[in-house]
Amino acid sequence: MIPTVLQSRPDRVPLRALDVIAKKRDGRELSAVEIEYFIQEYTRGEVPDYQAAAWLMAVICRGMTRAETAALTHAMLLSGETLDLSVYPAAKVDKHSTGGVGDKTSLVIAPLVAAGGLYVPMISGRGLGHTGGTLDKLESIPGFNVNLPLKQFRHVLGECGCAMIGQTAEIAPADRKLYALRDVTATVESPYLICASIMGKKLAEGIDALVLDVKTGSGAFMKCDEDAAFLAELMVETGKSVGKRVVALITGMDQPLGISVGNALEVMECMQVLRGGGSEDLRELCIELAGWMLYLGGKMQTAEQGRSEAERLLDSGAALDKFRKLIELQGGNVGILEDPLLLPHSKFTAEITADSTGFIGEINCQTIGNACVVLGGGRNKKEDAIDPSVGIIMRRRLGDRVASGESLCTIHYNSEIQADEAAALLRNSFSISESVAPKKPLIHRII
Amino acid sequence: MIPTVLQSRPDRVPLRALDVIAKKRDGRELSAVEIEYFIQEYTRGEVPDYQAAAWLMAVICRGMTRAETAALTHAMLLSGETLDLSVYPAAKVDKHSTGGVGDKTSLVIAPLVAAGGLYVPMISGRGLGHTGGTLDKLESIPGFNVNLPLKQFRHVLGECGCAMIGQTAEIAPADRKLYALRDVTATVESPYLICASIMGKKLAEGIDALVLDVKTGSGAFMKCDEDAAFLAELMVETGKSVGKRVVALITGMDQPLGISVGNALEVMECMQVLRGGGSEDLRELCIELAGWMLYLGGKMQTAEQGRSEAERLLDSGAALDKFRKLIELQGGNVGILEDPLLLPHSKFTAEITADSTGFIGEINCQTIGNACVVLGGGRNKKEDAIDPSVGIIMRRRLGDRVASGESLCTIHYNSEIQADEAAALLRNSFSISESVAPKKPLIHRII
Repeated sequence: MIPTVLQSRPDRVPLRALDVIAKKRDGRELSAVEIEYFIQEYTRGEVPDYQAAAWLMAVICRGMTRAETAALTHAMLLSGETLDLSVYPAAKVDKHSTGGVGDKTSLVIAPLVAAGGLYVPMISGRGLGHTGGTLDKLESIPGFNVNLPLKQFRHVLGECGCAMIGQTAEIAPADRKLYALRDVTATVESPYLICASIMGKKLAEGIDALVLDVKTGSGAFMKCDEDAAFLAELMVETGKSVGKRVVALITGMDQPLGISVGNALEVMECMQVLRGGGSEDLRELCIELAGWMLYLGGKMQTAEQGRSEAERLLDSGAALDKFRKLIELQGGNVGILEDPLLLPHSKFTAEITADSTGFIGEINCQTIGNACVVLGGGRNKKEDAIDPSVGIIMRRRLGDRVASGESLCTIHYNSEIQADEAAALLRNSFSISESVAPKKPLIHRII
Repeated sequence: MIPTVLQSRPDRVPLRALDVIAKKRDGRELSAVEIEYFIQEYTRGEVPDYQAAAWLMAVICRGMTRAETAALTHAMLLSGETLDLSVYPAAKVDKHSTGGVGDKTSLVIAPLVAAGGLYVPMISGRGLGHTGGTLDKLESIPGFNVNLPLKQFRHVLGECGCAMIGQTAEIAPADRKLYALRDVTATVESPYLICASIMGKKLAEGIDALVLDVKTGSGAFMKCDEDAAFLAELMVETGKSVGKRVVALITGMDQPLGISVGNALEVMECMQVLRGGGSEDLRELCIELAGWMLYLGGKMQTAEQGRSEAERLLDSGAALDKFRKLIELQGGNVGILEDPLLLPHSKFTAEITADSTGFIGEINCQTIGNACVVLGGGRNKKEDAIDPSVGIIMRRRLGDRVASGESLCTIHYNSEIQADEAAALLRNSFSISESVAPKKPLIHRII
């Protein structure tokens, strides 16, 4: 742990928050010193929320240059502590996803890449709105503790090659404070602010390389490839500007990833992939992301070699062994690997059936995520509790044929009222057409 | 006094502050209901400062339509009480200036137009930064009370035809709260917000007609005619949209208006104008503004006739009589009319002399205003106290010839340190050129 200190600014430049706001309002480029000053003073409570809110809106409206985005990321990073993981004898790599529905790759990738000989110090978030969160999924494993102090986090990382926890108070406190403000001032949707928020936290993890999974489509925050690519380029450039190896994959989120949506259901599906099985698309994306991590972390000469290695580690059971060790070290019940019924499971299930015959033409992926929230498997507000046992199993995917009366998906539920509401959402999530649409690749672009 | 109630909004439209912010952020037009809701909830403290700050910055960046500006003005007006002055047997008219240096017309115009048979219910502000304020000038008259309760304000108005007070808690409280926030979030400089702030307050005065004096030039907030004209049109349209007769004059503020800058000095100059004398430009502007007021208030058939009437009322002493009555009714010492030395006066004076011979080519009018602040005659922060006795008397105006060693202006001061600092500012405020520049008219445009 290196306690970091903000760069002191020359005394002859008396900065004022008001001037920083006005400069951005007028569309002028802020210097790194100005951005660092503003973020530092905001984190310290010297700049009040209302000034930060005005500044955030000016950033949304006027945008930021690459240099400003890098400075903001740096300011986030410097607002807290940075992990020093240099004692570990291999590269530290991580993966970050911008969030989607059924997006469960972290649970496969962390043990997989650790099995490949790298270190994966993963600090993750919780689900909000229609997207799920890694921490919620992990917590559906009985006993699994995601709230380790940093010292214990380092211990698990050293023992296992990977460790998975939630954000701590020490890492990028500016981001936590600023994110809470963005949430209530309609200033979330800015690629510059999203980049600084993600990259500031990830760079504080003390990593050498990072693979970004930028989602696009009906279940993602970015609905089109252009917006996703813009954010991806911004994050890659920002990471490179501080000497990190970074690559971004633009991947499709027009339907849930894999077949399961819901915390315990997703853990079960991950265990299948870790055994060399599982849904094809989930396995494909895990291998792709892990392949890049193994390559960027220096274990393999190319991403192609990385992918072959990742396949081998899944099929040999090496990744599953790491997952067992991770669960054990973080206090979870390893019995779930042999008996998935030890995971929470819902009391009831029900089928949602097609009312016509044809091909699945479109899936409203966000609505499926919302249906899971309705069942109790996600949250609308940060304070909401989660039911880990509920969720949805997809029975048809885009392009699949379905006959009238056949199942589109299965609901796992505990309350009839919730199930009825979710069923109504789910019925409207699938559109069935007479002709089959061309299949889109899962991985759209690599940046 | 009519207690006003906000229009109730249909229950089926559950408005959220966050959505109103996001809509403006995305450049979409807000409905009157949305704007009224936002302002009402902010005034009530239900919308926090940080949300209002984000919204204000979105307004700055995205602008507003005419309909939105009118709705915002209306929301300001409706946030408090509206004076009902219908019992008075003539039209109620007012004048508002966007602020300048040596801008003292209110003290002449209010009694002048009252002498013409109209009612002038004037609610004014204090000086801030380089611009002076009517209330500060009035308070340099010993005993003059600008903090009358509304009941007494109505009494003075009925007795005298004019009354001059500061803003009260009852009038447009939304504007007071919002203005304080704008001041600290770099969201002052928006014509839409300025229009709503000014017009919301003025329309709450229960007036029938309004003459706007929109200043442009080095001593004004608007430095160019285009910006001034844009604001002027916005205000005129907004006033007309609620059925008021409104006219705006774009007038020059490239040098102080009249010869004096400083509170008691300006009162002395006004008394000269009220006696039919005074500086030519100050008299000209007072006659022009009062002429329009007499015309819009229905006392004269044309503005031209209004101007003739205004001249007559100044030269006959009728306006001065009204001024005497106003001072008396508001508790001031009427002795100042016979003995101006009863006004506060500074201990010392000093001349600022020219260091070359030529013609006055440019005057930095804002710097002259700042020099008066340095002397103690204005304030940088709202809490600052004011020395009414200090100020500057201009000895040369734009285009005047000056010889090296001759006086450019005279400082009236009480502290050597302040005088030295002000002198340095003043020396740099005049530029002397070899050829005489063409003289600009005082009144640029009428809208």
